[in-house]
Amino acid sequence: MHQSKDREHLALERMLFFSDAVFAISITLLILEIKVPSVQQEFSELQLGHALLQMTPKFVGFLISFFLIGQTWIEHHRICSFLGGYNFGLLWRNLWLLLFVVFLPFATALLSEYYFSRVAICIYSVSFAGLGFAKVSFWHHAIKKHLLAKDSDANQSDRISRRVWATPITSLTVVIATAVGIPYAYCGFTLIPLIALLLDRTVARK
Amino acid sequence: MHQSKDREHLALERMLFFSDAVFAISITLLILEIKVPSVQQEFSELQLGHALLQMTPKFVGFLISFFLIGQTWIEHHRICSFLGGYNFGLLWRNLWLLLFVVFLPFATALLSEYYFSRVAICIYSVSFAGLGFAKVSFWHHAIKKHLLAKDSDANQSDRISRRVWATPITSLTVVIATAVGIPYAYCGFTLIPLIALLLDRTVARK
Amino acid sequence: MHQSKDREHLALERMLFFSDAVFAISITLLILEIKVPSVQQEFSELQLGHALLQMTPKFVGFLISFFLIGQTWIEHHRICSFLGGYNFGLLWRNLWLLLFVVFLPFATALLSEYYFSRVAICIYSVSFAGLGFAKVSFWHHAIKKHLLAKDSDANQSDRISRRVWATPITSLTVVIATAVGIPYAYCGFTLIPLIALLLDRTVARK
Amino acid sequence: MHQSKDREHLALERMLFFSDAVFAISITLLILEIKVPSVQQEFSELQLGHALLQMTPKFVGFLISFFLIGQTWIEHHRICSFLGGYNFGLLWRNLWLLLFVVFLPFATALLSEYYFSRVAICIYSVSFAGLGFAKVSFWHHAIKKHLLAKDSDANQSDRISRRVWATPITSLTVVIATAVGIPYAYCGFTLIPLIALLLDRTVARK
Repeated sequence: MHQSKDREHLALERMLFFSDAVFAISITLLILEIKVPSVQQEFSELQLGHALLQMTPKFVGFLISFFLIGQTWIEHHRICSFLGGYNFGLLWRNLWLLLFVVFLPFATALLSEYYFSRVAICIYSVSFAGLGFAKVSFWHHAIKKHLLAKDSDANQSDRISRRVWATPITSLTVVIATAVGIPYAYCGFTLIPLIALLLDRTVARK
Repeated sequence: MHQSKDREHLALERMLFFSDAVFAISITLLILEIKVPSVQQEFSELQLGHALLQMTPKFVGFLISFFLIGQTWIEHHRICSFLGGYNFGLLWRNLWLLLFVVFLPFATALLSEYYFSRVAICIYSVSFAGLGFAKVSFWHHAIKKHLLAKDSDANQSDRISRRVWATPITSLTVVIATAVGIPYAYCGFTLIPLIALLLDRTVARK
Repeated sequence: MHQSKDREHLALERMLFFSDAVFAISITLLILEIKVPSVQQEFSELQLGHALLQMTPKFVGFLISFFLIGQTWIEHHRICSFLGGYNFGLLWRNLWLLLFVVFLPFATALLSEYYFSRVAICIYSVSFAGLGFAKVSFWHHAIKKHLLAKDSDANQSDRISRRVWATPITSLTVVIATAVGIPYAYCGFTLIPLIALLLDRTVARK
Repeated sequence: MHQSKDREHLALERMLFFSDAVFAISITLLILEIKVPSVQQEFSELQLGHALLQMTPKFVGFLISFFLIGQTWIEHHRICSFLGGYNFGLLWRNLWLLLFVVFLPFATALLSEYYFSRVAICIYSVSFAGLGFAKVSFWHHAIKKHLLAKDSDANQSDRISRRVWATPITSLTVVIATAVGIPYAYCGFTLIPLIALLLDRTVARK
């Protein structure tokens, strides 16, 4: 019996490790999209500095995606620290979640290249919304199938149930904001941590 | 004695972890094959949208491979949750299995580029069949050498013994279907989860 | 209660593992920046040898970064072996640290391409200084929030508190050295392990 | 005391996991060197097949490196399953070992591109010899500093002490064989598993 528990634990750990690895590779691949600028053979320091400055949208895109993926990983980490078991439905939902994580480096590269394009912003925020919905579905499946650890704090898991909606809602807001104007869309991305914070406090107050 | 068991456990964990990492990298590298489209400097949103639409075969190839590798990982996960030990024969069989996992991003890129070519479909499905046969050989070695955990459910391990044949059989079917016509080949890929489901139910009924 | 401790342990492990994966990918991506030289179809061995010799700055940059990232990983490993718990502040500080780890392959590629440029050396050493400061902030947060394991050696943790300053101080020295002359900057990089050694001994003497 | 042991165990585990990740990334990056062939828009299946056949040296190089890195991983796995502790000397030796693992995808790409060149074969086999010597140094450090687990089989660890020499010796043989003629060099690579087998048996007979 004890051995069987150990193996259950190992199987759960593997799902987490596999996810960690996908998150880690995805977050690191972001840098591969930023190529070293090529300037003429005889160049001044000024020209290199200028070439790097012109790459600003790439660096900004890299930073936005790094922290959005990072925040998603932290949230995945928090959610999974409540898990006490798993089933194959959870593995599949996790795979869906990872699909969007894997897709993000492409969406980021597209956004960095065409940062003034509505199509690019939409693809980026839709794929981020997809990630958010996959996370919601992952968490609700865990609750519905009683996969949370028995000693987990009900109050805390309630807070997560709310907080988990922050990403999909904000991302959809960004999609709508894009219709109004591109600068509004970029403001939208900064809303994600703010909404998350608000949801956290609302629950904490009760 | 207890310490020695711990180390056996750690050694088994390492094999699983190494496999997880290879699966994770392979599944994430798929996105590297999709490059951001380059359109003229002054372009309309329509042109970017059009350029992205033309990349549909790449996205479809990405999705097919993502879920086939993902499903293989889930199956590997299921199989290995039965393991109670390992030997060097198992490590080698696992390496063979990973060879095909590593090869799949190339096969996918080839299929995405030449999706209307029999050569490309054959290479893709043959490498997927190879992955399937490696999985069969891995599982049968584990059974033959009594590497399953002592408390593992005989009924469940019987189900796996059947289910494990799903991928190689379907993949070979696809190779044959390609000879008849390319559309049949693509239908074949969707058969993999269906056959897996059927094999599962056949065993469950008994 | 015991189960809750297990999950706390697993959550800490995940943070370490995620970091390990990012370090590992970052250190391996360094090699991707070194492309196989392309020489004419009919070439002598001499020409290939010559083409490879001309790539010396790339190999040197690869070696410097490999060992600097490697040393940082070892230091991260040492620091984290003192941890007994974690909080979300620590996860965020770890994410900041990883941001610089992920950025280093780009900084290395830039340095290898423009190894005679002050701009490139500055970007490289500033990003290394950033990594160093993130490490300091990670460690001091762990101490301030009492996240060290209760049985950890106070003497040893004091040594780390000093040693952790080695990287940011040296990197800033390199930035200043660049203003004086480029060769001085390269000497600066070799100072990092030396200063680390000195700090270690100063503490050991007490 | 028990907690401290747990942390020691976790620290050792981290070294293994970090190594696993580097091995896994390195073995998977091999496929990135094989690019999808680009043929003319209107092409026959024959032309695609022909283009793929011309890539045979790339596939052969991929296979050789995959199994050499795989075999090295299995050996690393075997060696480390004897470890009961670690020190910072071991971490550094492990880092040296990983340096050569990280370098191998470049050496493979070079060999695949210039498979008829002595320079390329030498670089490949010298880097493989370096990997072998790093492994020897890793193992002997573990023995000298009494880092093996107390319950490990002395007979088995003796076998490893011999077997560990197989890679460096064969690789140096290949370097010498290259001086005689290139076909001899390729024969040399197949010697690695054979010599490993012979060393194993010699020890087993005693």
